[in-house]
Amino acid sequence: MKIGLDIMGGDYAPKATVLGAIEAYKTLSADQKLVLIGDREIATSILQENNANPDNFEFVHTTEVIGMGEHPTKAIVQKPDSSISVGFKLLKEGYIQAFSSAGNTGAMLVGGMFSVKTIPGVIRPAMTTIVPKLKGGLGILLDVGANADCKPDNLLQFGVLGSLLAESVYGISNPRVALMNIGEEEEKGNLLTQASYHVMKDTNMFNFVGNIEGRDLFSGEFDIAVCDGFTGNVILKLAESFYVITLKKGFKDEFFDRFNYEQYGGSPILGLNQPVVVGHGISSPEAIKNMVLLSKNMVESNLIDKIKQAFQ
Amino acid sequence: MKIGLDIMGGDYAPKATVLGAIEAYKTLSADQKLVLIGDREIATSILQENNANPDNFEFVHTTEVIGMGEHPTKAIVQKPDSSISVGFKLLKEGYIQAFSSAGNTGAMLVGGMFSVKTIPGVIRPAMTTIVPKLKGGLGILLDVGANADCKPDNLLQFGVLGSLLAESVYGISNPRVALMNIGEEEEKGNLLTQASYHVMKDTNMFNFVGNIEGRDLFSGEFDIAVCDGFTGNVILKLAESFYVITLKKGFKDEFFDRFNYEQYGGSPILGLNQPVVVGHGISSPEAIKNMVLLSKNMVESNLIDKIKQAFQ
Repeated sequence: MKIGLDIMGGDYAPKATVLGAIEAYKTLSADQKLVLIGDREIATSILQENNANPDNFEFVHTTEVIGMGEHPTKAIVQKPDSSISVGFKLLKEGYIQAFSSAGNTGAMLVGGMFSVKTIPGVIRPAMTTIVPKLKGGLGILLDVGANADCKPDNLLQFGVLGSLLAESVYGISNPRVALMNIGEEEEKGNLLTQASYHVMKDTNMFNFVGNIEGRDLFSGEFDIAVCDGFTGNVILKLAESFYVITLKKGFKDEFFDRFNYEQYGGSPILGLNQPVVVGHGISSPEAIKNMVLLSKNMVESNLIDKIKQAFQ
Repeated sequence: MKIGLDIMGGDYAPKATVLGAIEAYKTLSADQKLVLIGDREIATSILQENNANPDNFEFVHTTEVIGMGEHPTKAIVQKPDSSISVGFKLLKEGYIQAFSSAGNTGAMLVGGMFSVKTIPGVIRPAMTTIVPKLKGGLGILLDVGANADCKPDNLLQFGVLGSLLAESVYGISNPRVALMNIGEEEEKGNLLTQASYHVMKDTNMFNFVGNIEGRDLFSGEFDIAVCDGFTGNVILKLAESFYVITLKKGFKDEFFDRFNYEQYGGSPILGLNQPVVVGHGISSPEAIKNMVLLSKNMVESNLIDKIKQAFQ
């Protein structure tokens, strides 16, 4: 298996990404190879400075970088030799079996949809985030920003995608899918959630457990919470800001520790024909390592095949 | 001035409401009278048990109570002698100049729209919440649940309503209005926020300062954040759950202390022809006191007249 990593993506790239690759390498088996996509010369020197053997890695040299603030679609078209563009080319050709980057999220989403493309039957791919639970364990929230405007069919599909991720990668059996809403009762909500409840309550595609509210995110009895990407993105950033505040205030607690994005590695883009993971812009080496391992887990668990079967 | 208080509304009513009324009374001037609406006998005995003189209050006896879980529209129609229905009748007739309740939020909203009615020109009333700021001071978030589905014109009006509340009641001059969104740039967002940005950036009705994201809620450079009621309600409940978690974890901090709803008293329903405030269901006597004082401040600051002028 060849696992592709964009070493130019992220606020602390290429140093943090190459250091992360060194850590990820230590966990790989002999038949798993990490392919570092980016400036080969810089990567080699960082490896050598850190007493890592460049021969342990494969390199694909690129000459361009898509910046964090660049317009995704324009950047993908105008920078064909960027690490993200080349990464997707390798993924499409089957040279690598997974691709991850802590770079421009929009470029990763657009690049994925342009190159490896959306799985037939999936209306739109979705992005996920991990939510720590107060009683232990985790929940999956999606969509967190790929689809600002959604229809009930989108939310129904997010339930399927989230369930398969929870089962395949996180080992949660018969995962419970909840609808993020503004009341517990069936009739509560906006037009989207009212209609979504209606299609979800009758589905046999996943285990629907009803509505949850904002206050239930960390305590509710669910494994997957689905919402439109606008709501999910607001929730994600608000929750993250709370974690940052507790850090700044010096509060130490097991629950808040589990907000640390580093341990989750990144957000899979669900619904693409190949495993793709986007990392946090501020990714540390630890986060990069876990992003690589998450993309490897997506391959090993056959998540993509399972999604393809579900949408056949 | 006569200030109406529903003494039957809230999880701990009538005890918490009557105790709150005792505290509120101590801050009123001679020409300000608190009108307690609810079961007169119970109220009198609670007052006497607490060494408060019933003669300091005026009573309007009612025989029915709208429960927290009742359907708002049905309850308002089916219980004409409920404390909420009677409160709005007194408000409509001009017998009281403000009405507040910690009871059924939906019934307060529906009751307000049915009785004192929406100010001409206001499409829909909105509910607000107070957001503590990390650097001190506060922000106002609206709508937090009165309007699950919004159009750009709603959000534009929320900017006007929030600005007038900030100026009149909280003494913030030239308040800054931000749009809750999923990116800083003008083109970011869902269809609603993209279109809303467009109408807001050209308005001379308030001081628009652009987009904020979920992470900016406690730190952003704004005084009022506007959003649809679905997003606002999710934010409100999520933020509240964080505060509850910090309490349970035993974290003490000046910033988190300012999440305590008790000190803000309640949420004004903005856009009605009379001052109406809804308190938190779990309102304590301290919260009830501050809810009464907030409704009094809405009268004294002539907020309603200012809103009427703005929408002429």
